[in-house]
Amino acid sequence: MTPPTSPASPESPTPPASPTPPMSTPRIRPARPDDYDTIVAVLDAWWGRPMTDKLPRLFLDHFHPTSLVAEDAAGLGGFLIGLLSPARPDEAYIHFAGVRPDLRRSGLARELYERFFALARADGRSVVRAVTGPVNTGSIRYHTAMGFTVHGPVADHDGPGADRMRFERPLDVGGAT
Amino acid sequence: MTPPTSPASPESPTPPASPTPPMSTPRIRPARPDDYDTIVAVLDAWWGRPMTDKLPRLFLDHFHPTSLVAEDAAGLGGFLIGLLSPARPDEAYIHFAGVRPDLRRSGLARELYERFFALARADGRSVVRAVTGPVNTGSIRYHTAMGFTVHGPVADHDGPGADRMRFERPLDVGGAT
Repeated sequence: MTPPTSPASPESPTPPASPTPPMSTPRIRPARPDDYDTIVAVLDAWWGRPMTDKLPRLFLDHFHPTSLVAEDAAGLGGFLIGLLSPARPDEAYIHFAGVRPDLRRSGLARELYERFFALARADGRSVVRAVTGPVNTGSIRYHTAMGFTVHGPVADHDGPGADRMRFERPLDVGGAT
Repeated sequence: MTPPTSPASPESPTPPASPTPPMSTPRIRPARPDDYDTIVAVLDAWWGRPMTDKLPRLFLDHFHPTSLVAEDAAGLGGFLIGLLSPARPDEAYIHFAGVRPDLRRSGLARELYERFFALARADGRSVVRAVTGPVNTGSIRYHTAMGFTVHGPVADHDGPGADRMRFERPLDVGGAT
């Protein structure tokens, strides 16, 4: 018989809320279409500037099998929106990746990238590309540390005045990189 | 012997510029990655509002084989950016389509859509979807005339406050629709 105060007992339909949720390691899973609403709700805050225009719902609707979500006890911990290029059979592309501010420098971003590299490699892709704005020095540092080469700023890459840094990283399809 | 004033003679390395270019029927071809710069340069003018944020270069880089460009003597006449959903094997998606203002009501948009329906059908897709903003009454009328059903406005479809009308059109894979 389970004591009535046990929060984990199957008889407790609503376990008492904990004022300080237990620390937990984020778990990474493939994204689902309905993750869109959770992700888009945090974009502007995580980036510190308006970003939602750059992530319409189509990216989750059509590319969720190659995208990833990390969750912990506090909810969404990070995500990566990626695709396997239909036009370039050797290439995978990361459109968006973000980690909750309190989880930065925890290794979660690296884990998301490595999970994406693995799924790209499993599909025979030999290069991963991404872009960012020249002001995004954190992203430039991060991609360099992750083994990407950096090229740019490329003028007007994403339209008039929208210069971008281009990132590129080879994937050793047979090996561990 | 060709008189020196003939503009079309093969001996004329640079035919004299015609102040009024000859009328021509736009020709439709598959898009190429480098069409991006031509397309993004006209977006804001063709739509009458800022649109370039919604079309980063990745759409041409990775989806040009399922996108279309129309050209005539005056240059870019129209385009359609489409994709065959990797996540939804029965679905094709039109992200952007536009026609130069002087070519509207010429049948060019219909021709672009029908070319896209044909390539989607050839890949076994049975439905085409697209979205637009509720203010875009021209697009809503156009899609209705093209056989799409309209659903919406759907609140927050593309992020907080970004309501959208959803369009859907079945494709008869075995037939002519």
